Amino acid sequence: MKAGVEPLLNDGFAGEATKRSLGYLQKQREKGKNIVGIYCGYAPLELIRAANAAPAVLCAFANKTIEAAETVLPANLCPLIKSSYGFIKTDTCPFFAISEAVIAETTCDGKKKMFELISGIKPMHVMDLPQLPDQKEALENWTAMIKKLKGFLETTFNRKIEDADVEKEIQATNEKNRLMNKIFDFAALTPTPVTWLEFYDLTYLGQAATTQDMLPILKETIAKLEKRVAEGIYHGEKDSPRVLVTGCPVGGDATKVFKIIEEAGGVIVVLDSCTGMKPYSGMIAENTPDPYRALSRRYLDLPCSCMTPNSRRLDELDKMIERFKPDVVVDVVLHACHSYNIESHKIKEHITGMHKMPFLKIETDYSQSDVGQIRTRVEALFEMLPQK
Amino acid sequence: MKAGVEPLLNDGFAGEATKRSLGYLQKQREKGKNIVGIYCGYAPLELIRAANAAPAVLCAFANKTIEAAETVLPANLCPLIKSSYGFIKTDTCPFFAISEAVIAETTCDGKKKMFELISGIKPMHVMDLPQLPDQKEALENWTAMIKKLKGFLETTFNRKIEDADVEKEIQATNEKNRLMNKIFDFAALTPTPVTWLEFYDLTYLGQAATTQDMLPILKETIAKLEKRVAEGIYHGEKDSPRVLVTGCPVGGDATKVFKIIEEAGGVIVVLDSCTGMKPYSGMIAENTPDPYRALSRRYLDLPCSCMTPNSRRLDELDKMIERFKPDVVVDVVLHACHSYNIESHKIKEHITGMHKMPFLKIETDYSQSDVGQIRTRVEALFEMLPQK
Repeated sequence: MKAGVEPLLNDGFAGEATKRSLGYLQKQREKGKNIVGIYCGYAPLELIRAANAAPAVLCAFANKTIEAAETVLPANLCPLIKSSYGFIKTDTCPFFAISEAVIAETTCDGKKKMFELISGIKPMHVMDLPQLPDQKEALENWTAMIKKLKGFLETTFNRKIEDADVEKEIQATNEKNRLMNKIFDFAALTPTPVTWLEFYDLTYLGQAATTQDMLPILKETIAKLEKRVAEGIYHGEKDSPRVLVTGCPVGGDATKVFKIIEEAGGVIVVLDSCTGMKPYSGMIAENTPDPYRALSRRYLDLPCSCMTPNSRRLDELDKMIERFKPDVVVDVVLHACHSYNIESHKIKEHITGMHKMPFLKIETDYSQSDVGQIRTRVEALFEMLPQK
Repeated sequence: MKAGVEPLLNDGFAGEATKRSLGYLQKQREKGKNIVGIYCGYAPLELIRAANAAPAVLCAFANKTIEAAETVLPANLCPLIKSSYGFIKTDTCPFFAISEAVIAETTCDGKKKMFELISGIKPMHVMDLPQLPDQKEALENWTAMIKKLKGFLETTFNRKIEDADVEKEIQATNEKNRLMNKIFDFAALTPTPVTWLEFYDLTYLGQAATTQDMLPILKETIAKLEKRVAEGIYHGEKDSPRVLVTGCPVGGDATKVFKIIEEAGGVIVVLDSCTGMKPYSGMIAENTPDPYRALSRRYLDLPCSCMTPNSRRLDELDKMIERFKPDVVVDVVLHACHSYNIESHKIKEHITGMHKMPFLKIETDYSQSDVGQIRTRVEALFEMLPQK
């Protein structure tokens, strides 16, 4: 954002999403809440909260722990998985340190097998994730897995989870998501009054924090954004290329890609990933006979490339393109993430074919070694865009 | 095998397992059987056979189709998946050509996403494979998937599959496996009277061929092996290092590893993979109230690295080490196969720790570029073995 403009989250942690989350979770712990570590967007947050626990997104985004990880894991593996494991191996993830249990899922080969190597340190529960979300069995099976997780949380924390509390959390998530989407609507404006870093600050905190704690922050954010719009404050230039970023979760050292896009003159108007809009994009059915089944449907609808076919991702991209009016789509694929890497072919065909829009796939890791090459490619992409 | 010794399968196809299988399947087709293409050991063969169809293992083992595959798939992907896709893209897999339907499974990220790219050419059915084989839900869910496959086969071939026929096929598989294991027992002898190529010829044909067709071949093979033993004919030298090969499926161009092991003076006494003993190692429960559930249990017990935790693999290795008395264990990991690659760490710890046995992990692809390097490592491994 331009100099002199007050950050949306003006709490001393602007641009430091993980530090803010850690502070928040430490306070929750002091208040007597249990902390549950999570590695993935398929972990049903509402169930964790209904267990009077707070979800902690575990460390996964730093290059510095990869060297330690590679003493055990193959080098040719997704940096997110290597980094996650390296944090555990070097005992340097403060979120893991305060977690009393860990939830894992069979989302991808690398994570699934890495989890085996860190099981036994803390109570860990692995959820068997169905991969064909359109099959009726998937809904049944994932519902059963969510109920199994309920049992694990109840046993681990010696506390019964009430269906009514799950329902309450479902409604709370929906309330949070509605407000989050109001903020996303500001990002959709031309020019956009919000930066990717402010966006990221919010989506990151929103994972850890309850709706109750988020409400004042979100309302203040909306008020600030209204003020920015009224005062004509916007990010970038009026004719900056608008970028939709899709693909793998991106945080920490991988945000180099976002920085390069901005430095090259682009404005990121939407982050479609688990570290962006994805956790907030859908609503969970309320007041159903079985709240676990409602959770199951919502989480199965997450358009992750681990699903086959992942047609929901194309549908979501269509909606995002209409809503955020990007000029280009950038697909960020973490090195050796087979599912996003292979799916990128379909995404490219969809974006360049149906939407007639420029598409750039960036395969990267957490090192700085490819910064120059990525910059050249992003600059070339922006140069070939038609004048606005 | 030494010069002058009659091959076990003396049908003009010795050492050419795929050609023999193709000939067999073409004859089956002429007899009116349907052909069903499979890519993986989780495809329940008994159900395919009960549908009056024959399973065809689809092409996946040639380097020559990888270049074509890489125009769509990432280069950094398992060669088996790239080769499989390349065969379809270049329309050069004769097994696919004669298949009227294809069965796929969500075994790994790469295959799962590759299948999306070849769906629609032939009727394809994707089975959602549970990944936590010890959970009671896994048995239920995989049983449901097997019954769903039954529905697919019935619809595709417009033919009802009778439970009694499934039961008959279960018993037939058990009969085949018992005889196969008699042959494996010969491989367990010191010195061993059978080569890996003869072994491979048999295990490959046994996938396509019915028990009825295999019986005379297996009985003749056993008679030949008894004769070899009686006449003191054996493979390699009496003190050749005995090698247990574990890991990824290996065929075609990847058998370079087997050739190098033999050229370096080793004798492969057991191939523990889907192209080796794995499909024949277990028995299916007979005369149960639900034959689909019996199949489910058996197939879920396959110790593939896609399972978590895959403790069955360690159990099977223990049994194989006792039975085949290897001097070394070689773990063959295909490039970018994350699950076998990560699991290799556990296997190494188990082999070198519990069994105090030398262990070599070979990560390779289908090219010839690493032949020299693999040879050096295998030779070094054999040199460090204690004198017998």
